[in-house]
Amino acid sequence: MIGIDWGTSSLRAYRFAADGQITGRRDTPRGILTVAPGDFPDTLHAVAGDWIDNGEGRILMCGMVGSRQGWLEAPYLPCPAGLDGLAAAAIALPYPGADLHLLPGLSCRDRHGVPDVMRGEETQILGAALGDAEATVCLPGSHSKWARVKGGEVTAFATHFTGEAFAALAGHTILARMMNACSPFHAGGFARGVARAKQGGGLLHHLFGLRASALFDEMQEEEASSTLSGLLIGHEVAAALEDGVAPPVVLIGADRLTLRYAAALDAFGVPYIKADPDAAAHGLWRIGQLLP
Amino acid sequence: MIGIDWGTSSLRAYRFAADGQITGRRDTPRGILTVAPGDFPDTLHAVAGDWIDNGEGRILMCGMVGSRQGWLEAPYLPCPAGLDGLAAAAIALPYPGADLHLLPGLSCRDRHGVPDVMRGEETQILGAALGDAEATVCLPGSHSKWARVKGGEVTAFATHFTGEAFAALAGHTILARMMNACSPFHAGGFARGVARAKQGGGLLHHLFGLRASALFDEMQEEEASSTLSGLLIGHEVAAALEDGVAPPVVLIGADRLTLRYAAALDAFGVPYIKADPDAAAHGLWRIGQLLP
Repeated sequence: MIGIDWGTSSLRAYRFAADGQITGRRDTPRGILTVAPGDFPDTLHAVAGDWIDNGEGRILMCGMVGSRQGWLEAPYLPCPAGLDGLAAAAIALPYPGADLHLLPGLSCRDRHGVPDVMRGEETQILGAALGDAEATVCLPGSHSKWARVKGGEVTAFATHFTGEAFAALAGHTILARMMNACSPFHAGGFARGVARAKQGGGLLHHLFGLRASALFDEMQEEEASSTLSGLLIGHEVAAALEDGVAPPVVLIGADRLTLRYAAALDAFGVPYIKADPDAAAHGLWRIGQLLP
Repeated sequence: MIGIDWGTSSLRAYRFAADGQITGRRDTPRGILTVAPGDFPDTLHAVAGDWIDNGEGRILMCGMVGSRQGWLEAPYLPCPAGLDGLAAAAIALPYPGADLHLLPGLSCRDRHGVPDVMRGEETQILGAALGDAEATVCLPGSHSKWARVKGGEVTAFATHFTGEAFAALAGHTILARMMNACSPFHAGGFARGVARAKQGGGLLHHLFGLRASALFDEMQEEEASSTLSGLLIGHEVAAALEDGVAPPVVLIGADRLTLRYAAALDAFGVPYIKADPDAAAHGLWRIGQLLP
């Protein structure tokens, strides 16, 4: 079987042996934003055609490839949902030489009725092999996800706009003058931002404090970008903790981001563990086994 | 006497009779961002030279003209500060044909030691004739100010990055796709944003909720920009109220913005009054009377 984790900015392909072992993997920058409408079949063939020619007859895809801007829009599956539900909702797509299926994303509503969505993260969460106990999973990113899992199902989740807010604030406000988005990570600045997030006053007030601190030469350019990052991630973590978590928080994602969330959780005194980095592949495999 | 309220994007000039009545006023787009270094004297002459030639020998300026990007950088005066303190800290500038003074801005530190600054708003606040009682003044803007006033002094204040955050989020994130920044104000959308700000989950989560609501066709393009505005202003007001206010909140500024803050304060059940729109002029006059 072939598993495809096809997101906005990357396409990751996995080839599985009959026992689920990963025997091949490809990581390409062919995210859906680089693919013209109608070019999805050819792009898939360019990345995994040789595996298909070599006898892999089953392909399962997850992620933004199932969005309005992707191959085909797959309606969201409402929470709670687990491996069985996702497999049952998979959409068969015509494709020469292989059985191709596309997974939906998940949706939920908070207690006020406001909707939330994910595409691809559900496969990572359910691939992390968390068992039946209650768990809280955090997937950092442009749109960070905090999900609750119980009995093998995603029961609810909340998305935070943290990564996109960082890029907009660091690049398109007066804060851009005091920071260099290419500065290396500054641990002291990040910790300072997280500590500020724990104080009162609100995020919008804390943002101006960065500017005022620079005016008084109390924040240097090399730490400013990391301080903004710590401030935003700190506010995200504070909101997630207020919402309630079942520790240890399970962090899924690339080290570049999960290390920051680990530092923030440390500052809040909340234990965490890192999930298997191949959670998406394992999720694709497990769901693939349940397809009809 | 001539009073000049010289900000980032505009220059407002006032001519006063001997009893403080405003006998002339000019509102120009010659904010400091449009003035090259060294061109400040000529710009002032272009706007108010005829008044000087007609015998006005005293000029007092406040606002960003006293910043690093202005005519001369005037060090911030620490809070608490009133009319007397500002007059004593005014800086005399050489200028042909008139006694010219430049007012400093104010600075303060919150209980955690983080600095905050204002330039120009102090003159509006002290010109609003609030008496000696305790009052809370709100000045909406790119960098909204909430100030505490007592005994004729600004005792402390907090700035919120609300206007700049709105522009960056509405223009430079995925939210830009679902809103038109030129849409007319939508009262229902604004109220929806304020109501959301009163719920838990945090601002970063609420921002993603706008996106998800649009995906489910539960938010229309014509209301989205006002909803984002209400969300941000609602979070600002919630933080300010948590910090403590002495009602009625005194709103100073242009109707375009103060009407939004009035609607938000209504939603939080907090009374407010609108200050005299000429508060800056009155402040300049009152401080001018105290100059040596």
